[in-house]
Amino acid sequence: MKIAIAQLNPTIGNLSGNAQHILEAARQATQQGARLLLTPELSLCGYPPRDLLLNPGFVESMAQVLQQLAGDLPPNLAVLVGTVEPNPKGHVTGGKPLFNSIAWLEQGKIQQIFHKRLLPTYDVFDEYRYFEPGLQPNSFTLDHLRIGVTICEDLWNDEEFWGKRSYAVNPIADLAQLGVDLVVNLSASPYSVGKHHLREAMLRHSTVRYRQPSVYINQVGGNDDLIFDGSSFALNHAGEVVCRALRFETDLVLLEFDEEKRDLSPSATGENGGLAAFAASEDEEIWAALVLGVRDYARKCGFSKVTLGLSGGVDSALVAAIASAALGAENVFGVLMPSPYSSDHSVEDALKLAQKLGIATQTLAIGQLMQSYDQTLEHLFAGTSFGLAEENIQSRIRGNLLMAIANKFGYLLLSTGNKSEMAVGYCTLYGDMNGGLAVIADVPKTRVYSLCNWLNRNGEIIPTNILTKPPSAELKPGQVDQDSLPSYDILDDILQRLIHEHQSTAQIIEAGHDPVVVNKVMQLVARAEFKRRQAPPGLKITDRAFGTGWRMPIASRWSAIA
Amino acid sequence: MKIAIAQLNPTIGNLSGNAQHILEAARQATQQGARLLLTPELSLCGYPPRDLLLNPGFVESMAQVLQQLAGDLPPNLAVLVGTVEPNPKGHVTGGKPLFNSIAWLEQGKIQQIFHKRLLPTYDVFDEYRYFEPGLQPNSFTLDHLRIGVTICEDLWNDEEFWGKRSYAVNPIADLAQLGVDLVVNLSASPYSVGKHHLREAMLRHSTVRYRQPSVYINQVGGNDDLIFDGSSFALNHAGEVVCRALRFETDLVLLEFDEEKRDLSPSATGENGGLAAFAASEDEEIWAALVLGVRDYARKCGFSKVTLGLSGGVDSALVAAIASAALGAENVFGVLMPSPYSSDHSVEDALKLAQKLGIATQTLAIGQLMQSYDQTLEHLFAGTSFGLAEENIQSRIRGNLLMAIANKFGYLLLSTGNKSEMAVGYCTLYGDMNGGLAVIADVPKTRVYSLCNWLNRNGEIIPTNILTKPPSAELKPGQVDQDSLPSYDILDDILQRLIHEHQSTAQIIEAGHDPVVVNKVMQLVARAEFKRRQAPPGLKITDRAFGTGWRMPIASRWSAIA
Repeated sequence: MKIAIAQLNPTIGNLSGNAQHILEAARQATQQGARLLLTPELSLCGYPPRDLLLNPGFVESMAQVLQQLAGDLPPNLAVLVGTVEPNPKGHVTGGKPLFNSIAWLEQGKIQQIFHKRLLPTYDVFDEYRYFEPGLQPNSFTLDHLRIGVTICEDLWNDEEFWGKRSYAVNPIADLAQLGVDLVVNLSASPYSVGKHHLREAMLRHSTVRYRQPSVYINQVGGNDDLIFDGSSFALNHAGEVVCRALRFETDLVLLEFDEEKRDLSPSATGENGGLAAFAASEDEEIWAALVLGVRDYARKCGFSKVTLGLSGGVDSALVAAIASAALGAENVFGVLMPSPYSSDHSVEDALKLAQKLGIATQTLAIGQLMQSYDQTLEHLFAGTSFGLAEENIQSRIRGNLLMAIANKFGYLLLSTGNKSEMAVGYCTLYGDMNGGLAVIADVPKTRVYSLCNWLNRNGEIIPTNILTKPPSAELKPGQVDQDSLPSYDILDDILQRLIHEHQSTAQIIEAGHDPVVVNKVMQLVARAEFKRRQAPPGLKITDRAFGTGWRMPIASRWSAIA
Repeated sequence: MKIAIAQLNPTIGNLSGNAQHILEAARQATQQGARLLLTPELSLCGYPPRDLLLNPGFVESMAQVLQQLAGDLPPNLAVLVGTVEPNPKGHVTGGKPLFNSIAWLEQGKIQQIFHKRLLPTYDVFDEYRYFEPGLQPNSFTLDHLRIGVTICEDLWNDEEFWGKRSYAVNPIADLAQLGVDLVVNLSASPYSVGKHHLREAMLRHSTVRYRQPSVYINQVGGNDDLIFDGSSFALNHAGEVVCRALRFETDLVLLEFDEEKRDLSPSATGENGGLAAFAASEDEEIWAALVLGVRDYARKCGFSKVTLGLSGGVDSALVAAIASAALGAENVFGVLMPSPYSSDHSVEDALKLAQKLGIATQTLAIGQLMQSYDQTLEHLFAGTSFGLAEENIQSRIRGNLLMAIANKFGYLLLSTGNKSEMAVGYCTLYGDMNGGLAVIADVPKTRVYSLCNWLNRNGEIIPTNILTKPPSAELKPGQVDQDSLPSYDILDDILQRLIHEHQSTAQIIEAGHDPVVVNKVMQLVARAEFKRRQAPPGLKITDRAFGTGWRMPIASRWSAIA
């Protein structure tokens, strides 16, 4: 039996558009002789639909579009489509009103509905807000092939693999007990660095443990802060990879289930024998993720062009390069806004970068505006000395100019702050934080450098001077970041321990960091919460990003996370 | 037996400070002869602690502070304290690592721990993110009095009262089956208009249905966007109110349980015989809520003074009045920033308001700054005509000036946008949306007027001209809001149906609204999502506020909620 994987890139809520993509994949799959087509979790509405699910009209529309799709699909192709289903007895038994479901469509009809059993409620996931868990193992028989159906999190509870249980039941074990020929897992699993290795190792463990060949289908594409990497794959009985779909791109992959051997056959189709290559390095992988994230956010919000401030620093240089790769250099507009405190090299470096990338720029000196603010505030600020207020004014002048350009020409403004800055608040709210999308908000400063160096591996794209000069906000004469912050390798190590490893102050100090520095960083992180709350969505590339998966109180006396 | 209710106002994460408040209440209760002291849900850390709970160090500190508190308390007073408890078998059975718990402290020790059974995962609540539900009914015996312990949501699942079940079990019914003399409910239930009536009606229903006298204890105070109104109360067997604590204030209330009648006795202590009065109107109630929200946000963030822009319009007038009531007029600094498009009455009205309130002001004309921006952008904007970009520049100049003042003098900036504006995006991101707290972001424009009229009930505080002139953003000559928007009574009715009643476009049109207007509003609401995502926390006064309980995708093709 030929099985096709449709690694799709839905737009949230665009039900008819998403259905159209499923239909196109189905036609292509039929042409290639497939009997079964697999699509990602919630493929009809896209993942995550969030509070759109609270609207009864939205849920009704999904049901209608699903029925219509069932009728439009090639009748002899079985298609698994991700959708939501009402929980008819919820108000009687005390359950949530919806299930996160998979519909098996065939012969113009919905043949069967399967419900997701394990509902994640950590990090960015809020599934218990909307869904009731399914209680039964899900399977169906297609031409004598018994197929177990699992949805995303259903796979993530093997107590042997994790060394603990996260949920009371393990749907994979339940399917093994039932006895199935094949397990499919229909997912919408957001990207983080190296997560595809984790997914393969986890599924391999289950596959070998329960001797069930397995197919893993993932959504691809950027949806607000989340990037889905695709990276669908399949494993035979022995846990060997029989196919890997493309990473960060839509794909349609064909698999063969050998009905005599009762196993998936090695694929021989496509490039690399159906085995798409992994990235050669973490930098290459993160780069691909961020390019996709920018491209999809712009496209799905209806923007074709973006703008950003070019300071001559490394952050804006990286974002300009990502944007150029995502949308084409001709769709990126760089704005240089030197002040009297800007060093000569800032403008030179920014112009050289723009030239390397081939993007258009405009230079708008802000000295006159700074004077106007000084004059306007002269009386009120009389007797005070130059400080943070004056530094922030400059950043906010630039933020205002960038938004004016974005508003005037219909561009999307990209903000360029990195994760280290966002963590300690070394950024100006309503200034350099301005933007519709914070491209590198989850990229620590040390990673910003390594991405730039990776980008330069075959020749200079980011001008070398940008990478070698000391980082500076240039908001007062002679300022460098390390006047206010520890060196970035130390800062990033502290932040990694604090944010990702949930270490306490004592533990971080024990690891060899200076107590004074650690305590200062802790305080800075806590105090910057009000800025992060008002930040634009930032593309998530780690297992703990600021944003929808980071829910901290602002008016709090606990030193952040220490 | 004398029972005391400590209606406390904790600061999130301030464990030792919150413990100190519990200790003080305990000493006072002991002096008054109490045998039992009740405190709100999570009274040790404050509600909601959010992702602080993901930090093991935080949870360990709570355990230490709880032990310390047990030792410090008067030994013969039984005290119920809200805390979290590790779920020791969670990793084996597949549960979340914590319980939302109540500790019974007495004789220097933790006598018993009770776990919350029903965990809300709707609106602003994320309890399944952190907690495992308790499985057993909770009760203990104190001097022959059998007391059933429930925590907040445990009370909210009476299928008779609601006409449906939200959870499979009803902890109140379970306690009735066990047979208890008294049910206590320790809550942290956020305010929304009229919610105290709902709570009393709901508890009365359970009390009468199961013939169990009941005590309801609620947290009080503002924590970021959430305002807790207190409004603790108790009902005897017959469902009669025997005491009501103050609303929007801390309180310590004493109750008497008559051990012969096995019922709560009518209280005779305090003003009004222990029955604090309700507000005379919804406006009075909302006013009190907002005053508390501003006072606590400022205090808990460490600000004593606030600033805001005074446009001469009704929104900033109301916010100035609220801030003056919250912090004292001497701690409010109003900034007038007229432009060449400002009408004469704007400055006059704003100054008159400031005079009525007794707040200091400064006038900073922005004409020169507007010219500086025009000159800076002259070349780039050549050939384009005045439009939204130029309007937004003005708003962002004001936002920059206000933040400069806030930064310079250490003031908290209050933003003044109302809910109607936030819904349709009639506000400027990084401009008038700037601020640490959005005071009236959950107050529809029609309610803004009614609050101002209420405020003027005994004489003019908000100058009449502010209430009678047509609302205008004054960002271009002769502009009024109704150039771009339907009249506010129509807009607010559409928004009420859309946001609170989850009605579809078709239903709203059926209710008598113009289809063109409805569709336009739907589109505006959808398109403004990116602005709302970057808004400051807004004080929640309705059952559905934008903010932590509103989780919408941005890059989406579904027309918002229609």
